[in-house]
Amino acid sequence: MTLRTRLPAPRRLPPLLPLDDRSAEPLQRQLYRGLREAILTGRIAPGALVSSTRALASELSVSRTTVVLAYEQLAAEGYLSTARGSGTRVASELPVRGSAVASRRPSAPARRAPRLSRRGDALSAIPSGGIRVAPAARPFRAGIPALELFPTSLWARLVSRRARRLSLSLLDYGDGGGYRPLRESIAAHVAGARGVECDWTQVIIMPGAFAAIDLVVRILLDAGDQVWIEEPGYLGARAAFAANGVRVMPVRVDAEGIDVPYGRARAPSARLAYVTPSHQYPLGMTMSLPRRLALLGWARTSAAWIVEDDYDSEYRYGGRPLPALYALDQHERVIYLGTFSKTMFPSLRLAFLVVPRGLAESFRLSREAGDQQPPALEQAALADFIAEGHFARHVRRMRAQYAARREALIAAAAREASQELTLDASDTGIHAIAWLPAGVSDRDVAARAAALGVEATALSTYYLGPPRAPGLVLGFAAVRPRDVAAGMRVLRDAVRASRRAR
Amino acid sequence: MTLRTRLPAPRRLPPLLPLDDRSAEPLQRQLYRGLREAILTGRIAPGALVSSTRALASELSVSRTTVVLAYEQLAAEGYLSTARGSGTRVASELPVRGSAVASRRPSAPARRAPRLSRRGDALSAIPSGGIRVAPAARPFRAGIPALELFPTSLWARLVSRRARRLSLSLLDYGDGGGYRPLRESIAAHVAGARGVECDWTQVIIMPGAFAAIDLVVRILLDAGDQVWIEEPGYLGARAAFAANGVRVMPVRVDAEGIDVPYGRARAPSARLAYVTPSHQYPLGMTMSLPRRLALLGWARTSAAWIVEDDYDSEYRYGGRPLPALYALDQHERVIYLGTFSKTMFPSLRLAFLVVPRGLAESFRLSREAGDQQPPALEQAALADFIAEGHFARHVRRMRAQYAARREALIAAAAREASQELTLDASDTGIHAIAWLPAGVSDRDVAARAAALGVEATALSTYYLGPPRAPGLVLGFAAVRPRDVAAGMRVLRDAVRASRRAR
Repeated sequence: MTLRTRLPAPRRLPPLLPLDDRSAEPLQRQLYRGLREAILTGRIAPGALVSSTRALASELSVSRTTVVLAYEQLAAEGYLSTARGSGTRVASELPVRGSAVASRRPSAPARRAPRLSRRGDALSAIPSGGIRVAPAARPFRAGIPALELFPTSLWARLVSRRARRLSLSLLDYGDGGGYRPLRESIAAHVAGARGVECDWTQVIIMPGAFAAIDLVVRILLDAGDQVWIEEPGYLGARAAFAANGVRVMPVRVDAEGIDVPYGRARAPSARLAYVTPSHQYPLGMTMSLPRRLALLGWARTSAAWIVEDDYDSEYRYGGRPLPALYALDQHERVIYLGTFSKTMFPSLRLAFLVVPRGLAESFRLSREAGDQQPPALEQAALADFIAEGHFARHVRRMRAQYAARREALIAAAAREASQELTLDASDTGIHAIAWLPAGVSDRDVAARAAALGVEATALSTYYLGPPRAPGLVLGFAAVRPRDVAAGMRVLRDAVRASRRAR
Repeated sequence: MTLRTRLPAPRRLPPLLPLDDRSAEPLQRQLYRGLREAILTGRIAPGALVSSTRALASELSVSRTTVVLAYEQLAAEGYLSTARGSGTRVASELPVRGSAVASRRPSAPARRAPRLSRRGDALSAIPSGGIRVAPAARPFRAGIPALELFPTSLWARLVSRRARRLSLSLLDYGDGGGYRPLRESIAAHVAGARGVECDWTQVIIMPGAFAAIDLVVRILLDAGDQVWIEEPGYLGARAAFAANGVRVMPVRVDAEGIDVPYGRARAPSARLAYVTPSHQYPLGMTMSLPRRLALLGWARTSAAWIVEDDYDSEYRYGGRPLPALYALDQHERVIYLGTFSKTMFPSLRLAFLVVPRGLAESFRLSREAGDQQPPALEQAALADFIAEGHFARHVRRMRAQYAARREALIAAAAREASQELTLDASDTGIHAIAWLPAGVSDRDVAARAAALGVEATALSTYYLGPPRAPGLVLGFAAVRPRDVAAGMRVLRDAVRASRRAR
């Protein structure tokens, strides 16, 4: 009375139960899985009587307890049913044959990649920006600060202090807008540093700039709405628009920033403009005052919104900073976006919005519905870091460091590669543009440099349409002065090689 | 030669420059702001000559340096222009009159709330779940664990250790899928605990369950696509669908879970089903095996996706757990979602997806484009917490605690409120349902209980259509046994009062 003889058509059953004494998996579990698979694939038919526990134990040379436990689990899960006096049967109502689970191999690779949504395709097609040669920063990785100069032990001390004292309310879900003391610190900081006068309730803490733009888009725009983006422009914003099915209208920039009349002519019904007035990303110019006023005028008359991404204005090496566009707006059209990725470090994942008063409650509620608070620990530690003066001090120290690194980049470009590239370093931010000779492919140069261990992002990556001229985006904050000259020589050689290959 | 006499129509100028010696704001800044506002509002006309610095200093009784600094800043920002020999003038190209900045009050509250997008309206209208009486948990707050039993000092030790040793690559932007050691720990954990066999590359770390569902929706669905959600069902999922303009089709649940034939009849072309098979949210039943197979069969034949939200299956107080739906799927249709909000604590903000092999790379790329990594510190500390065995130990300890708290709830309901409610506590999870007498409004009862300091969520909140019967969702994990009886008496009184008021 073995399993073999009791079950209908059990010819292939023994190979299904290849119990392995040396496996880490308990025998009862192996038996359970083998029987389950036999049932699911129809090799043991619905309604069939199965061996008694005693008989199967003897057949398989395992203890009866092993079989009892496996049967019990199968019964608990609905695969077997036991009626007193009539033995144990495979459940009869299982829709097994030709069902979802008829094939043998549990994780056979799909033959074709599954179909994504249109926005899924768009989102995964957004270029990721620079090529990363190695995990640690290389010359001239853009968009990251000097991580080796971050005061890690000071930060660890603040984090540890907060971690030891995590109150019950800090462990719990937080307020939709973020941790209040951090919101207050930020409100005070942006008022002083950027002329952004706001109440703490208007400050919404977000887990990164993408999430912030994403939230703005979904609260204010519907799929199919048009937005202006700067051409060339920031890829993360393009990702947020793509993710929301919004139509992106590239608007060219000139020496004064985004060309408002051009945008009005091409996309008059746009509902939002995404701009980087302090330091255009990636070209680096500051938006002029007339252009700022024209943009605000457009937003006002069109009842459109402006997202002002002020991503690196803390670093300015000459002249006085213009206050934020937000500070000029008197009609509640500007949403200000700041990030701590460049002033602190990227994996902190903290950014913030300052929204017009009339939008604050909608933002808070929407963020609460989609529980997008950053972790409480980072919020609390950063609030301390700002309140105790460390933040202002760190930014001041870094400004001096980055000024020196910027000078080193300018000097190296002049000394090592004056024939191959023209450096264009604005007086703000943590990257510069290296213009390449006409006709050179910046993507080819970037690929050649990457092969030699140097990271430079092709400027054409940031264009939706045809790029104006070839160039490279060179970050300088994360590059130690001693590495600059060698990196510049690699760029020089990459340009030369690219020209020869034409 | 004062400002008053030199400028055109300067009649209201002096009140615009109300310099305040006692203000914390430096005089030069006050002067700068006053002049800027006068220019922007057109009270000083474009092109007009302004007073010399000496004259204005004398007029205002301030040092000349104060005026020079204010003028310099205004000139740097483009408000003033200085031509040698012809004095300082207001820039002539400012489009000020009738412009965006013509009104006086910088932050006058908007008269009407600004118009949101359709999805913005939908998102901010999602009910927030339970009423919160106080920041700290009260009986019977649902959806949170026993925060007071979390081993905070152990956690602080792991966090501090990691914070002290944050490597440069941990400070930087991370891999799109998350921190690799955490992904590996999770892959091992879900294989053992839930039968979810996967490779670490299929594990995508997300900053919370909402963000995880949100990512699935945007990668796999387009606006206007239909999804099945359980009726009643989880509000966070509804928020993620609303945020993406997806059409939600409520599919009723019965004792076996989601009613697949009903869904097939009502919304045959749905592209995704969002389900909670281990412990239906909020009603608590486990999806039966035939229903699981029917759902998988539907997904296979429709090429639709299933999101399996396994939000609290770690807590099971009797019987054997069914393996995850994911473990039954042999056609790569199921995306598994787990969270650490219930096993660790909510403000940790860590959840994860296990996606089919064929989707792993698309998910990683999309998440990289929208830089949604959680902070590195939490990911690294949690990886340690799991690897060092603390996680399994903590869950085991909590399971015993919650079993006792569940018993206390059942006993208190029987003792204190047997006429007013019928407790329905499934053997899984951290909440139970209290059914109320027919005709009673659960929202009214919840409001009355809240007024008396007790939190209970009306079951009707979770329905899109008319609710089947009035009930309350009662969390028990966060309720100390000594507080249960008093809380139950409040519920009893609330039900009585609500009946009397009818």
